[in-house]
Amino acid sequence: MKILVIGGNGTIGSCVADRLKQKHEVITAGRTSGDFNVDIENKKSIKDLFNQTGKVDAIVSCAGATKWAAFESMTEEDFYIGIKSKMMGQINLVRLGQEYLNAGGSFTLTTGILAEDPVYMTTNAAMVNGAIHGFVLAVSQELKNGHRINAVAPGLVEDSKEKFGDYFPGHNPVPMHKVANGYVRSVEGKRTGEIIRIYG
Amino acid sequence: MKILVIGGNGTIGSCVADRLKQKHEVITAGRTSGDFNVDIENKKSIKDLFNQTGKVDAIVSCAGATKWAAFESMTEEDFYIGIKSKMMGQINLVRLGQEYLNAGGSFTLTTGILAEDPVYMTTNAAMVNGAIHGFVLAVSQELKNGHRINAVAPGLVEDSKEKFGDYFPGHNPVPMHKVANGYVRSVEGKRTGEIIRIYG
Repeated sequence: MKILVIGGNGTIGSCVADRLKQKHEVITAGRTSGDFNVDIENKKSIKDLFNQTGKVDAIVSCAGATKWAAFESMTEEDFYIGIKSKMMGQINLVRLGQEYLNAGGSFTLTTGILAEDPVYMTTNAAMVNGAIHGFVLAVSQELKNGHRINAVAPGLVEDSKEKFGDYFPGHNPVPMHKVANGYVRSVEGKRTGEIIRIYG
Repeated sequence: MKILVIGGNGTIGSCVADRLKQKHEVITAGRTSGDFNVDIENKKSIKDLFNQTGKVDAIVSCAGATKWAAFESMTEEDFYIGIKSKMMGQINLVRLGQEYLNAGGSFTLTTGILAEDPVYMTTNAAMVNGAIHGFVLAVSQELKNGHRINAVAPGLVEDSKEKFGDYFPGHNPVPMHKVANGYVRSVEGKRTGEIIRIYG
């Protein structure tokens, strides 16, 4: 398969890209690195990306930011950081990516455990991840051309344990190969509308 | 208790207001009806509402719109209908309502079964309801002054069965008294961070 991994140089994205490369042709895109540049907050940038890559068999998104801050300090604009990036950025990848996805191809979006098991200072991430879960369940009933869509929801990943572990008290860090397996399951499997929880 | 019901003249809101009136002092607000007018998409309108009501013991939201349309026809702007109204409208009710909620008071937001069991043409509602579920779980850990927050997620309610039943194939309509019970559970109970599913 020809697979586009967006956010392919992040902690999760680079691991996923490396794993998929074992069996597939992988092209990566990122804000400042990868085979192509893309800003998922910008629809024109997304269209430019797809025009450069041409048609692919799978579109994998490991991209999107959210605001990490205490609720009492969160402004309305802070909430829109995650809305514009990880929420609508990923939804726009699906909206605009459909015509560049071969028949029978798949979308795989990234959410996270915070949708269902949030920790302190994660109101923005929790809402964004929860939104994408609902979206995936709903849109899987409407995609054409045999397109599938799933979300991978990783817990705190082992490679982020040192940096972020203190923010996730009592969470079990998830080995990176299990996270990568979630994406393989989505891309190579046949299910659609699945929230693939990799919680450790 | 003195309870403010926003959206108190809708199908669910009027039922909830009537039920809460049996034991409490209830004031209602709505876009065009109720004791006060409010547009939850407008922060100034929300602030004006709270300045008129003064402090209350519970803030119940049965308000917020989403776009009901096939995914292939949904523009980015269509997605923002639900984001600005039912998603950020309800989140802003919490952000701005905190200083008008007495110590130990509660917020009750409204979501719906579409977060977890969406039907055709509900990508916007599914994402908005899923977002509020994540938000409620997260923010319940951060509210001050003993404030609590829950969401009530009703299924297709009996009073909407005639109008919308065909869009919910095989769903079990929920009796209105069970829906009202969800709000009573949130307001008079002591739990916080609960998604109160009333699925029939």
